[in-house]
Amino acid sequence: MTNPAGTPTFDAVELIRRKRSGQRLTDEQIDWLIPAYTRGDVADEQMSAMAMAVYFRGMDDAELSTWTTAMINTGERLDFSSLSRPTADKHSTGGVGDKITLPLAPLVAACGVAVPQLSGRGLGHTGGTLDKLEAIPGWRADLTNDQMLRQLDEVGAVICAAGSGLAPADKKLYALRDVTGTVEAIPLIASSIMSKKIAEGTDSLVLDVKVGSGAFMATIDQARELATRMVALGRAAGVNTTALLTDMDTPLGLTAGNALEVAESVEVLAGGGPADVVELTLALAREMVASAGVDVDPADKLADGSARDVWKAMIRAQGGDPDAPLPRASHTDHMVAAVDGIISRVDAMAVGLAAWRLGAGRARKEDAVQAGAGVVLHAKPGERVQAGQVLATLHTDTPAAFERAHQALADCWAIGVEAPERRPIVIDRIS
Amino acid sequence: MTNPAGTPTFDAVELIRRKRSGQRLTDEQIDWLIPAYTRGDVADEQMSAMAMAVYFRGMDDAELSTWTTAMINTGERLDFSSLSRPTADKHSTGGVGDKITLPLAPLVAACGVAVPQLSGRGLGHTGGTLDKLEAIPGWRADLTNDQMLRQLDEVGAVICAAGSGLAPADKKLYALRDVTGTVEAIPLIASSIMSKKIAEGTDSLVLDVKVGSGAFMATIDQARELATRMVALGRAAGVNTTALLTDMDTPLGLTAGNALEVAESVEVLAGGGPADVVELTLALAREMVASAGVDVDPADKLADGSARDVWKAMIRAQGGDPDAPLPRASHTDHMVAAVDGIISRVDAMAVGLAAWRLGAGRARKEDAVQAGAGVVLHAKPGERVQAGQVLATLHTDTPAAFERAHQALADCWAIGVEAPERRPIVIDRIS
Repeated sequence: MTNPAGTPTFDAVELIRRKRSGQRLTDEQIDWLIPAYTRGDVADEQMSAMAMAVYFRGMDDAELSTWTTAMINTGERLDFSSLSRPTADKHSTGGVGDKITLPLAPLVAACGVAVPQLSGRGLGHTGGTLDKLEAIPGWRADLTNDQMLRQLDEVGAVICAAGSGLAPADKKLYALRDVTGTVEAIPLIASSIMSKKIAEGTDSLVLDVKVGSGAFMATIDQARELATRMVALGRAAGVNTTALLTDMDTPLGLTAGNALEVAESVEVLAGGGPADVVELTLALAREMVASAGVDVDPADKLADGSARDVWKAMIRAQGGDPDAPLPRASHTDHMVAAVDGIISRVDAMAVGLAAWRLGAGRARKEDAVQAGAGVVLHAKPGERVQAGQVLATLHTDTPAAFERAHQALADCWAIGVEAPERRPIVIDRIS
Repeated sequence: MTNPAGTPTFDAVELIRRKRSGQRLTDEQIDWLIPAYTRGDVADEQMSAMAMAVYFRGMDDAELSTWTTAMINTGERLDFSSLSRPTADKHSTGGVGDKITLPLAPLVAACGVAVPQLSGRGLGHTGGTLDKLEAIPGWRADLTNDQMLRQLDEVGAVICAAGSGLAPADKKLYALRDVTGTVEAIPLIASSIMSKKIAEGTDSLVLDVKVGSGAFMATIDQARELATRMVALGRAAGVNTTALLTDMDTPLGLTAGNALEVAESVEVLAGGGPADVVELTLALAREMVASAGVDVDPADKLADGSARDVWKAMIRAQGGDPDAPLPRASHTDHMVAAVDGIISRVDAMAVGLAAWRLGAGRARKEDAVQAGAGVVLHAKPGERVQAGQVLATLHTDTPAAFERAHQALADCWAIGVEAPERRPIVIDRIS
């Protein structure tokens, strides 16, 4: 629904005051506000005040659904109905070492489900999927819609940059929230993610909502609220949506950094890799395959090498050489254990911050990232270590960064006398 | 204190998030934020988000004092120390029919206290003091600081436009709050008013904080909080500050409109005028004279005609002719009583809105106002009226406005069988 001629217009100040006082916005008010902001008739300083009012006052389900639909309606919608296979998409709220998209997309495609993964670049301590794949020589992120559709048809999986045509309101609003301290409003996070995912036109969607020190949502309650609201939005828009709440206190796998994470993903596709990465990849793959209505066990497709074959085809289709050696950083350094004992904790945020400072991430969106930079962990919670044993290797092309990376990691490891309780990686499922 | 070289700089987003989460801002943070916003290093969309966060989270007394001082420090401070008399200033939060400044300034000057009244123009349903005086043929609002000082020395009272040199941060922030739904934050109202009043350099200050339907503060609790915070700010800055909470459910006096209110003020100075206007003028005059340490009863100066003499000298000093006939609107219309009974209520907001629609006020700050437009009441609460009796005369140069003025006044009068309780005009005093 685009705004027809004769749609009522409103006063932005009146709408801000309304939300500020705890009243809900009507459908007509939202259907005016979002396009008016997108075309510049509502000013940035008005929308940031509105976003802060939403932070404090929230939005009810119907309001949020209207808000999200209005964002979608500012742009195009993709259409995968010409594909012979059902489509399933996945979104992760982002976490340290979260390379799951890399093995997951080819694995699910190998099960007979088309996987269109429109991804982004990283900012701050969480990496971006496109940054990781760009470590592969020759690989390119930018595809036209036609190229994307052809690759989905021929290969079954595509991971590429989201075009600017999807929900331009979100692009503008997200950039505003980023500089006005209003990112953390849960309804705005939910509508930002879901407007793009719904506009993508997937049949089904699995959300990986991270909880813990390395995640955007630090508490289980926040994560559950975000997941519940996104699932409701997806279902209201006719997308078969489920969410997993997954643990992000400890980094996923043993690597954080672009090429380092690609290498670890390739290990998983070859049948190896860290147990937690394999476990989460399979859990998400099973959700995606089931929600697409396909009766195949992804574990079989991992075991028989067909997921790895799709991976190679997917990388080649976007100009990359899946067999080329990956870039390596020019300098390495180590962190060692100070005492004997059993590791009880490896802080995900600390590892993410260290990888970022080593050059794996960017502080501003126009910054470049180092392909080889990052952190490799040699021990995870539950493992016994001895004083002096290497806990992590730091990689960078800019050795001056080692000092600040060491600072970030100073309190990363907790070493005690008892093995910590083993926590499941999937904490809860919301559908 | 302007920012010396080496003052720490901060991240605006971090400060917004800090306030959003309920933490206080430090002195260093505020001393960075306010000048950074004033010179444009902090963007409007960041400051509006901050203002909305302040709306929800408030500011403690020390924080608010630092904020206010930082606003003052973005501009000049006036200095009245060369005057032979003590100075006293008054600020009203604005209400319908509030012409009190007009008789008050010359009355207090007649008592031997210098009264520098830097005033503004009206916006919306409350009139502006300068708009009212500009109804007097020849009178001009703009004076240089030197002209103002000379007039204070020679006449004792001046009512003129506030120069742009006082607290430019406030000018910019107020304009932003006006378009972002963040006007109503009490700490921001208090700092906006007090930054200008403290920068004016007066020795003492009396605040007239209005409560009721025609006022900015609709409840006594809000008004008391605003008054208390302003008094604390004034005293912290060495200004002898007191506040009266005064009733604004019913319009002050019998007129709302520029020339109409000047005429009513002249009546008061001539020893007549409505009882409520006289009562409030004397109450405020007594506070101002006492806080300036002068032992004179203003009632004597009203009775002996010296206040009126200062009025004429003050108008003449700014180019006006105090004896010239005032402009009159070209068209009039009437509202009549629908039933017999005793008036229990005359709604101030309705009268203000009607006067505004008739042309006495402006919707946008670049609009012109009509000198003669407005409403004259013929009966106030407690008076007995008969069906068909004229309750109010409407004045305008644009008769098409009558219909919307009548609509505004539709529920203005409540007429019952019992006389309403007589409410005192001064509800409380805060010092």
